[in-house]
Amino acid sequence: MTERELHELLNKIEPADAGAMDAAKKRQAELAKPPGSLGALEDYAVRLAGITGKLCPEIEKCRVIVLAADNGVVCEGVSCTPQSVTAQQCINMTRHKTGMSALAGYFGDEIAVVDVGVAAELPTPVLNRKIRLGTADLLREPAMTREEALRAIETGLELARQAAREGVSCVGVGEMGIGNTTTSTLVLSCLTGLSPDELTGRGGGLTDEGFRRKKEVIRRALELQRPDGSDVIGVLSKVGGLDLAAMCGVFLGCAEQKIPAVVDGFISITAALCAVRLCPQAKDFMFLSHASFEIGYRKAAQELGLEPCLQLGMRLGEGSGCPIMFRILQAACAAHGNMATFSEAAINDNYLTPIRKGNAYEVKS
Amino acid sequence: MTERELHELLNKIEPADAGAMDAAKKRQAELAKPPGSLGALEDYAVRLAGITGKLCPEIEKCRVIVLAADNGVVCEGVSCTPQSVTAQQCINMTRHKTGMSALAGYFGDEIAVVDVGVAAELPTPVLNRKIRLGTADLLREPAMTREEALRAIETGLELARQAAREGVSCVGVGEMGIGNTTTSTLVLSCLTGLSPDELTGRGGGLTDEGFRRKKEVIRRALELQRPDGSDVIGVLSKVGGLDLAAMCGVFLGCAEQKIPAVVDGFISITAALCAVRLCPQAKDFMFLSHASFEIGYRKAAQELGLEPCLQLGMRLGEGSGCPIMFRILQAACAAHGNMATFSEAAINDNYLTPIRKGNAYEVKS
Repeated sequence: MTERELHELLNKIEPADAGAMDAAKKRQAELAKPPGSLGALEDYAVRLAGITGKLCPEIEKCRVIVLAADNGVVCEGVSCTPQSVTAQQCINMTRHKTGMSALAGYFGDEIAVVDVGVAAELPTPVLNRKIRLGTADLLREPAMTREEALRAIETGLELARQAAREGVSCVGVGEMGIGNTTTSTLVLSCLTGLSPDELTGRGGGLTDEGFRRKKEVIRRALELQRPDGSDVIGVLSKVGGLDLAAMCGVFLGCAEQKIPAVVDGFISITAALCAVRLCPQAKDFMFLSHASFEIGYRKAAQELGLEPCLQLGMRLGEGSGCPIMFRILQAACAAHGNMATFSEAAINDNYLTPIRKGNAYEVKS
Repeated sequence: MTERELHELLNKIEPADAGAMDAAKKRQAELAKPPGSLGALEDYAVRLAGITGKLCPEIEKCRVIVLAADNGVVCEGVSCTPQSVTAQQCINMTRHKTGMSALAGYFGDEIAVVDVGVAAELPTPVLNRKIRLGTADLLREPAMTREEALRAIETGLELARQAAREGVSCVGVGEMGIGNTTTSTLVLSCLTGLSPDELTGRGGGLTDEGFRRKKEVIRRALELQRPDGSDVIGVLSKVGGLDLAAMCGVFLGCAEQKIPAVVDGFISITAALCAVRLCPQAKDFMFLSHASFEIGYRKAAQELGLEPCLQLGMRLGEGSGCPIMFRILQAACAAHGNMATFSEAAINDNYLTPIRKGNAYEVKS
């Protein structure tokens, strides 16, 4: 896919269906409850109606798509975790032994672990969509070529299309890649113009010394690569990661395929912002899950103009917020679809035996 | 049950098991993830271990217990909803047609709708534990007698015991009762010493005029009844409701029976605070769900010293936050019980084919 083909495709993506959303709002107003009393659950149901085009949408098969890749920058000592953990955790995910996958397994959600650039050969059931064996060290050269970034985006698009073909009704976008809070901070800084100091956190748990090194690496990378924040593909290729680029592609593909996409933590929301910068309509299809403890998350959420509903202080990544958010979207659909309207809720008076004596007072209404 | 018998019973209630919590914390430290990276899910798992005495607790059968009662004070015009809606919605709940019950039905949670004081005769499957036909108008006389408040508490205790006998592993505490944001505001004001102005919200959606009236009624009730904030049963009987008293009893019963209890919104957290004032150990068994939009909720949470994890802007009541919180507690247990430890997570090197060439860099670690 050329860049021109990508932009043609993105231009064709439609926003959520305004007519379906109006109909869903009308239904919400008819449900037997004080207006607005279900808060965000009402907004979610309305937006899901707009995404699916159905008055009463349902969330059935859910899938967390995990984009896994290694980052050359880890050789600069920006992470306290060895690079080999990327590959290890990919395998552990397929066995439901990591944080996200333990949750997904419990709730019966599907997991697709996709190798888009891990620096090791991985066995099935990890899906092999490897673009290269990890990125280059972005302190020496661009993390990847522009063509590789584009291929990663296309890979993500294809994964969303596959999910649509396989009847998935909600996608969660997760990741695995040691060093990816560094690349995410870089990308977010380029996209927002915010100083890296406002966005850099301790990732998996850096010491003070490691944290200083990480900030220094980020500063030098920006100086060296000088990415143009208005050129998303340029930013991703210079200072991003294959996971970020592919996740961006999944978000775009979910918009194309009209599938709701759940945003996980800091890396996921950075990829979501990349997608929205490439295609503003993609925002309509996104649902934030938890507010990551990672410092840059809040800035990214403000930039996106979306709010997370889960305050769990999590910072594990992987897509670990997605299985919980799937349940919340299901709850939104269940309330929207199954509650009685005011006319249905009015119980036939003969069914009750109203008592207007003793201590029960007449109501002035 | 006499007050003395109640206090003897409460004195015997034990806090969560510190040994089990220490063992669970040790397990959390061994799980293959950055320490603390699952945030509140870790805390929940540890506390659930302390409640159940099991290293790896599980949340299986969940039940929302809805305490329903009418409030005499509605004749003063403190609600925009007619009193008959209490009875109607009790019936609609048993049919899974209200907000909470649509959610519980979707997720397969049990519902027990319990009439502790509705001003109408209700058909089964609403459980009849009626203490009186709604409370008195607290602007004219105490809402109920001290004995009635005690009986409502005892009724709640019994409902928790019944849940324990029936193998329920998690209880949600909900309510139905037009006018109960007024009684909750009164009780909360007495218990905390905070001015009603800081605690009074618009409930189901009062107009400016109705809101002024509600605040005036609350002010006059406090002047007339002069409850002693240190006497919880006195407060409940003078300005409370049968729902609040019975909910307080359910929280106490959950502590007695070592069952985790999920707090819903404003009315539920007010009852939870009553329970903790009567028996401080009861706090160990409580889990806040969503931060209600109702203004007094935050003050009550601060007073309790617990944090809600769901920011959904909900203000429906009924226990509508409970089915979502059940899923979050299940997620906490799934991560805690099923994730690999560091030693389990280390993949045998022979299983991988590490590639240390091309663009993959050696890690300095």
